[in-house]
Amino acid sequence: MSQTFTRLLGIDPGLRFTGFGVIDVHQHTMRYVASGVIKVAGEGLPERLRSLIDGIHQVVDTYAPQESVIEKVFVNVNPQSTLLLGQARGAAISALVLKDLPVHEYTALQLKKAVVGHGKAKKEQVQEMVARLLSLPANPQADAADALAAAICHAQNRVQIALLSQNGALGGLSKKGMRIKNGRLVSL
Amino acid sequence: MSQTFTRLLGIDPGLRFTGFGVIDVHQHTMRYVASGVIKVAGEGLPERLRSLIDGIHQVVDTYAPQESVIEKVFVNVNPQSTLLLGQARGAAISALVLKDLPVHEYTALQLKKAVVGHGKAKKEQVQEMVARLLSLPANPQADAADALAAAICHAQNRVQIALLSQNGALGGLSKKGMRIKNGRLVSL
Repeated sequence: MSQTFTRLLGIDPGLRFTGFGVIDVHQHTMRYVASGVIKVAGEGLPERLRSLIDGIHQVVDTYAPQESVIEKVFVNVNPQSTLLLGQARGAAISALVLKDLPVHEYTALQLKKAVVGHGKAKKEQVQEMVARLLSLPANPQADAADALAAAICHAQNRVQIALLSQNGALGGLSKKGMRIKNGRLVSL
Repeated sequence: MSQTFTRLLGIDPGLRFTGFGVIDVHQHTMRYVASGVIKVAGEGLPERLRSLIDGIHQVVDTYAPQESVIEKVFVNVNPQSTLLLGQARGAAISALVLKDLPVHEYTALQLKKAVVGHGKAKKEQVQEMVARLLSLPANPQADAADALAAAICHAQNRVQIALLSQNGALGGLSKKGMRIKNGRLVSL
């Protein structure tokens, strides 16, 4: 890997399954590295959070990312789910900061806009667009796709959206949800 | 400290202030060790969770507890608060399990029953009873008192509530909220 590439780790936290996605980015170029799902094990909450942290640490140790990205969550219709997701997210962020990784946060809306071009995209659309943007042979599993989407979103944010207009690497995006603003191609 | 004492760390997690309380327990006897409040610092959530974890780790390294106790939280009337508290709690549990501490969980109702004798106790009553049970010269700060209450609750649970009837160490409890059931003094 060239020194100029930056390795990003996206995390989609959950108490049962936590998705992860690793990509390398350099200006306009994104390269897929790895993705998958951490199956969280254990009976009680402390045990599950430990399993979640251990899983994330294993991914960090294996792929050595330089920055991390996690979805900002909002309150769920079900308050109990909100609490559980909050705890999982707290543990996931803990795992990342304990590895001294910068943690970037984006809303679900920002992630969907980044990969599909609009904020109302369904899970399947996110999976498809992630596969296209990273030239994957098949759609990644949903949690892994969300984690990759987080990494892609941050990758785009890093290089400034405007750069999208110059390069074919993110060309898939230009077909949907992009528009010209002040003479530059920007995401909707 | 005698080898037969077990050191318990209670944690009352929060994103601004996290209370902690350390006690030594041996059968009927509880000894106060330390308590205080971790002032959580930092701007964004990841930074604050890191600060929270570092604070808990400092307490663990200083007092070397053998077990830990944390309040089970329930959904708040404010969903956003529920999410924030969930994240703080997730990070706090993470900090504890990463130090290989067993984490015991009790509901607010159980904590209040354990120290005050009934589940509707107000914050001030918890502070007063914690001070009495541990023979403190003054009431501890509210977050620290809740953390000590968690530790006391687990201490009582460990030795079985029935032992309370034999010993003066927890005698403060017998004046309020205790009743005789099947010939034994039990907490309400």
